[in-house]
Amino acid sequence: MVPQALDALESAEIILGYKTYVDLIADLVQNRTVISSGMRKEVERCRGAIEHALSGRNVALISSGDAGIYGMAGLVLDICRQMQVNVVEWNEENLGRAPGFFLRIIPGIAAFNAAASLLGAPLMHDFASVSLSDHLTPWELIEKKLSLAAEADFVLAVYNPRSKSRPDSLERARQVVLRYRSPDTPAAIVRCAMRQGQWKHLTTIGLLPVDEVDMQSVVIVGNSRTYVWNGWMVTPRGYLDKYSILR
Amino acid sequence: MVPQALDALESAEIILGYKTYVDLIADLVQNRTVISSGMRKEVERCRGAIEHALSGRNVALISSGDAGIYGMAGLVLDICRQMQVNVVEWNEENLGRAPGFFLRIIPGIAAFNAAASLLGAPLMHDFASVSLSDHLTPWELIEKKLSLAAEADFVLAVYNPRSKSRPDSLERARQVVLRYRSPDTPAAIVRCAMRQGQWKHLTTIGLLPVDEVDMQSVVIVGNSRTYVWNGWMVTPRGYLDKYSILR
Repeated sequence: MVPQALDALESAEIILGYKTYVDLIADLVQNRTVISSGMRKEVERCRGAIEHALSGRNVALISSGDAGIYGMAGLVLDICRQMQVNVVEWNEENLGRAPGFFLRIIPGIAAFNAAASLLGAPLMHDFASVSLSDHLTPWELIEKKLSLAAEADFVLAVYNPRSKSRPDSLERARQVVLRYRSPDTPAAIVRCAMRQGQWKHLTTIGLLPVDEVDMQSVVIVGNSRTYVWNGWMVTPRGYLDKYSILR
Repeated sequence: MVPQALDALESAEIILGYKTYVDLIADLVQNRTVISSGMRKEVERCRGAIEHALSGRNVALISSGDAGIYGMAGLVLDICRQMQVNVVEWNEENLGRAPGFFLRIIPGIAAFNAAASLLGAPLMHDFASVSLSDHLTPWELIEKKLSLAAEADFVLAVYNPRSKSRPDSLERARQVVLRYRSPDTPAAIVRCAMRQGQWKHLTTIGLLPVDEVDMQSVVIVGNSRTYVWNGWMVTPRGYLDKYSILR
């Protein structure tokens, strides 16, 4: 958590979040009103946060990872737009205005930032982040994105790789990637990066144990130049061996 | 900076970094040996860090943004591989081993994480990060990546968009993207996100003022669904208006 997030939590009167994430920061939210709710209650949670903010309270809405990357930031803005709430950026210039409320989005360590740091340096060259959730995106579009990203030789960070209702989505994605990448391409699973239950497994896209992957996991697939050395997964910074690193 | 980075800085005996970044943390590094060096001295800096670590010193090598995303993490590992230095992951399990040295990579807020938070929520759906630097990657490959990413409707985060030696690279990239995206697609420039000199400009890909862009900037281009509302740039979470957000 970045210092700005700690400051925001400290000044909040009401803290809202998904129960699992609120529990992670229990020691930081003592003596404040905490409203935690279950999974798939994102819309209700955002509406609650907006309503408390409109009533003049100082509210913190918690997101895991980076709130701006598959997190809560976009949903808050979507809902404000639909509700026609005049939400205004929190900064000193704006403090004279009288909006519905001020909003400050605080960035965080997204799952791929954390996962990459545990593996070595797989994201040192261009990468694409793709979610396999077909809840709001048709599978054909997901497959098109995967296919073009694999063809373009992007390193891939795969979010929401597999769930109980989509047990085959990662295997289908793997087959798409294998049309463009060698089965020997390094690939890794990281579950609960930097959290209780952290687990990682470094392998290849050909041998990826898809059954080990769940919704708490991110899968990272290397590009054509990614190598594994001494247990580290590394993507070189470029395609040209322009100069020797050794003098 | 995440708390883990503060801990690492506190325990470091020697701190190395690019001068501009070391200056940013001057108040955190008092009374320690600080070795700052100029731009394009990355290899020397990494070699210095490795040599001090091999001599048994506790070393912190500073990177801006996320060390694992176009940062220093990959270069350290590349050089260790070439030098055949047995660098081992810093964790409790490994502490019994006797490696060349232990390495701990600490993730950070990459430029796109920070830029997105200042704009609203442009990275709420799948995105691709592309560097326009042709120093180590041939331009044809960069253009291929841009083209396929634009065709796949990824939101784009464009790194190293333009430099004195490549004044036309962003304009060339813009022309590639315009083959697939409407000129009305929201696009934004963020310079020095969350740092002194922070500046942002929200516009469209058709009107993007490329001359305002420098190496300290990140350019974010929306996907086909990205909208601007009340000064916020937002990419919806999906392509399906599956349920109304309002009850």
